Amino acid sequence: MNCNLFITFEGPEGAGKTTVIQKIAERLAEEKIDVLATREPGGIEIAEKIRSVILNPEHTAMDERTEALLYAAARSQHYFEKVRPALNAGKMVICDRFIDSSLAYQGYARGIGVDEVLSINEFAIGKKLPDMTILFDLAPEVGLARIHAHGEREVNRLDVESLAFHNKVREGYLQLVERYPERIYVVNADQNIDRVVEDVWSLIYEAIQ
Amino acid sequence: MNCNLFITFEGPEGAGKTTVIQKIAERLAEEKIDVLATREPGGIEIAEKIRSVILNPEHTAMDERTEALLYAAARSQHYFEKVRPALNAGKMVICDRFIDSSLAYQGYARGIGVDEVLSINEFAIGKKLPDMTILFDLAPEVGLARIHAHGEREVNRLDVESLAFHNKVREGYLQLVERYPERIYVVNADQNIDRVVEDVWSLIYEAIQ
Repeated sequence: MNCNLFITFEGPEGAGKTTVIQKIAERLAEEKIDVLATREPGGIEIAEKIRSVILNPEHTAMDERTEALLYAAARSQHYFEKVRPALNAGKMVICDRFIDSSLAYQGYARGIGVDEVLSINEFAIGKKLPDMTILFDLAPEVGLARIHAHGEREVNRLDVESLAFHNKVREGYLQLVERYPERIYVVNADQNIDRVVEDVWSLIYEAIQ
Repeated sequence: MNCNLFITFEGPEGAGKTTVIQKIAERLAEEKIDVLATREPGGIEIAEKIRSVILNPEHTAMDERTEALLYAAARSQHYFEKVRPALNAGKMVICDRFIDSSLAYQGYARGIGVDEVLSINEFAIGKKLPDMTILFDLAPEVGLARIHAHGEREVNRLDVESLAFHNKVREGYLQLVERYPERIYVVNADQNIDRVVEDVWSLIYEAIQ
């Protein structure tokens, strides 16, 4: 059994990632697997400050390249302060969003270029990608409707983007699946949440055998 | 006469760049040359906020790659909001520090690698480098002694680095002169300030003919 894995979760807002990750972490704990569940900026002070610059709704003049560099900077700090030490200590790390978010949102949907955004992220964290990535696939309409219906958090600058943008994000993610078929697994997030948890658990269970 | 140039000034702290740039800007104005004098973050709100994250003395845990990405992010925003519009309007832009600071400090002195730091900066601003760069060359001991003697500003996180580090920065700058001999010009900053102004003015005057 190899549990010293770095597993990331990707997909749009409203796909249920947060809830599913929590349930997966509980189940891993039941299985006595030592797991760190995190998400950028993850309580890392420097990364938190960088994130607050990115998400400030007043920063409408933010250049798209500046934004991509800031995501990479926050990623680097979170990775070296939190993710890598846990992996080095033999833990499993599960992370809500990671490099593929930048590739899909900035690289593909904003049109900067997937390879260009990949290069600054490789600068940020080195060339080692996650061991496994689980993509929550969902039509953007469904995800956005869930966010608005639940009123679960304040609407931020990224939510305000047009539906066309969110459709491009989905396309970008699906192209990444073609690019990294051995790393990225797709789950259908337009199902009952318990069903999604089961699908994710099956993938992880198989990976650690 | 071609005055639509982007000219950057480089060198260590205490080399007199700020004073010299001010005098050069005055002389350019006397010659009726429309000039924008700036330095990163240059009053650009997003860039200012990024810079405050970098220079916060409490951020001792900042990873060197995070730092390099943050400099590139602030550079991108300052460049697209301030430098490029002025160049597009036909002005001369003179800028106190730019890409070569990152190459010398992060790339060479911190050992990340000049090519790696160049790549994230090309992401930030595109492949167009400044038209002309003037390097104020000075032994680090002289520059640091000037800062401490004048008490001209608070000592920040970068000043606290060891002398060995500042010597590496100087080596890094001099290697950049070898790499870009047609772009980077060296002036001896260990002279009377009026003499330095004259040396810089000669270089600029020749460039605009």
